[in-house]
Amino acid sequence: MSKALTIIKPGVRELHVYSLRADRAPIKLNQNESAWDAPVRIQQETLNRLRERAWSRYPDFVPSGLHEQLAAHCGWVPEGIVAGNGSNELIQALLMIALGPGRRLLISEPTFALYRQIATILDAEIVSVPLTRRFEFDIPALIRSIESVQPEVIVICSPNNPTGSVIPQRALKELLQIANGLVVVDEAYFEFSEDTSVTLLRHFENLVVFRTFSKAMALAGLRVGYLVAAPQLAREIAKAVLPYNVNIISQIAAGVAIELYESELKPRVAVIRSERERIFSEIGKIAGLEPVKSQANFMIVRSCIPPREVYRRLLERGILIRDVSGYPQLGDFFRFSIGTCEENDALLRALKEIVNEGKTETARNR
Amino acid sequence: MSKALTIIKPGVRELHVYSLRADRAPIKLNQNESAWDAPVRIQQETLNRLRERAWSRYPDFVPSGLHEQLAAHCGWVPEGIVAGNGSNELIQALLMIALGPGRRLLISEPTFALYRQIATILDAEIVSVPLTRRFEFDIPALIRSIESVQPEVIVICSPNNPTGSVIPQRALKELLQIANGLVVVDEAYFEFSEDTSVTLLRHFENLVVFRTFSKAMALAGLRVGYLVAAPQLAREIAKAVLPYNVNIISQIAAGVAIELYESELKPRVAVIRSERERIFSEIGKIAGLEPVKSQANFMIVRSCIPPREVYRRLLERGILIRDVSGYPQLGDFFRFSIGTCEENDALLRALKEIVNEGKTETARNR
Repeated sequence: MSKALTIIKPGVRELHVYSLRADRAPIKLNQNESAWDAPVRIQQETLNRLRERAWSRYPDFVPSGLHEQLAAHCGWVPEGIVAGNGSNELIQALLMIALGPGRRLLISEPTFALYRQIATILDAEIVSVPLTRRFEFDIPALIRSIESVQPEVIVICSPNNPTGSVIPQRALKELLQIANGLVVVDEAYFEFSEDTSVTLLRHFENLVVFRTFSKAMALAGLRVGYLVAAPQLAREIAKAVLPYNVNIISQIAAGVAIELYESELKPRVAVIRSERERIFSEIGKIAGLEPVKSQANFMIVRSCIPPREVYRRLLERGILIRDVSGYPQLGDFFRFSIGTCEENDALLRALKEIVNEGKTETARNR
Repeated sequence: MSKALTIIKPGVRELHVYSLRADRAPIKLNQNESAWDAPVRIQQETLNRLRERAWSRYPDFVPSGLHEQLAAHCGWVPEGIVAGNGSNELIQALLMIALGPGRRLLISEPTFALYRQIATILDAEIVSVPLTRRFEFDIPALIRSIESVQPEVIVICSPNNPTGSVIPQRALKELLQIANGLVVVDEAYFEFSEDTSVTLLRHFENLVVFRTFSKAMALAGLRVGYLVAAPQLAREIAKAVLPYNVNIISQIAAGVAIELYESELKPRVAVIRSERERIFSEIGKIAGLEPVKSQANFMIVRSCIPPREVYRRLLERGILIRDVSGYPQLGDFFRFSIGTCEENDALLRALKEIVNEGKTETARNR
């Protein structure tokens, strides 16, 4: 081992990095992105406004204009908004100001892997409360854990990635009341559930809500996220957010997307929601597959065929999904994003074929 | 105080945030940006290539294509490159994997404020070795400090912001030899000095070089930076770099800028260097101003008139510079970026007027 590496914190050295297979396919249902590209009107208006900006000049130190638009969009004050290069960056900033050795992060797993990764780099302790067997938040267990440990940060991803579970508002209030630490609600997928915790901000100064432009807003390629919190708290988190973090084009695009949300993006969310219900019911009819109710733009499915095998066979058919069998409790599951109607039909056809092939093979082996 | 704030780490609570006055002026010489916008050919080619990309899709998990281009550009292997959303992000990642309570960062101040800010958030200890009175790196003091403290990370910003000082290669080698920790050379301005430490990477596994597209590459608005290091070390630092950190447009623009560097950007660097020498000599002729030799695209000047006053009077004349009097040792100094020939002429004229006004006022007050 190189001598230089010995200087690195042991927790980092041991860390197995979160990564993603680089397979490609015509139908891409592996990252919970928007099923359609950003609307042409949003792209064109962004490029129009970009013409007035010099590429050589730094963005504003803090993107105040965007903060004002975001505040109006989500119904909060601009001083309580911080925009980031994707919400990932804001998750990192929040964990940086609150975690370190001897400090604790509470998460409810299986969930988005980044919380654990960043907390590990910061040498914090991780307390994990499993979801129930039906993939719901285990509220009594969360309450017990908060009361006994009082973690500095509690992260609730709702709708949860990769399960699509949502925390009931009443339960969330209860957690907020008993928690001494910061309670983060990651609402990356909230548009697909129409459930938001932003309305609770007036009552809870320890609440932080994360949002993203990578899903319903169809701008994953431009990296924009934001957080919503009490102004005093937002100011502290902003200390760990790097200056000029949101580039000029992404700032403009996010602003345009907000302006055109109702006409250009919201109708698509309605389609995705209705497609989600249709596919749930169709997959439920395939013997050997058991879909889990989701409030997001994706779904996990328990499969009689090993998820790795489903992944491979779908890839052969030009469809890319996510094998989530490495997550705790999800050994038998795969995940897919809700695509366009045609993509979803193709997925359903392919899944039926694969399950039938599986049955034939099993029969043959008997 | 809100109860929620008590959970935040004390070092963060006490931190005074690095920020920047939001004044604007037609001649902008306050952020060491490129004097000219990104060349039209670079902008157009970027937008052409962008047409083939969906805005709704995440960038590659790791921007491998860009890493290959950067490797060829700087003469190193792709596995030893990590691109970031500005080099700031990479500075943060490196400090995150190596610093924490009980670990130490060595810097040579006055220097870029971000190193201290991030180390403070990480609860690390900061060891500061002042530059000499002539604003050179104090090599004997650095050696003594490294030998006695053996800090986990040593950051040398060369050319140094805000002084323009460069560390001699021989001295740097000496530091690399005696240091057990990581030695970072921040080369944000290296194109203006033509001095680089990348050539030392073959010999020193503890060296990390930072570069940026915000200065000579004229892309500050798009936020691209990169680091160069031994592959094993790059892999560890990458653990603290967030996935999808470089958005699709910035990735494309950086690639195009590399391709067109020789024809479109390098000639400008030559102009800036020659302008720097011209202005240095011209300011030297103004009684009451004392410029400091710089190897970057900016310069500090010792001023008989309080820097805040120089700032204000230049702003009245439509010129924005940086009052750096808040930095250690720089109580009497202001800083400006080298602009276009016309901008530099305007600055020289304005400085002469201001100094003359100052003299008249002093005479009147006698």
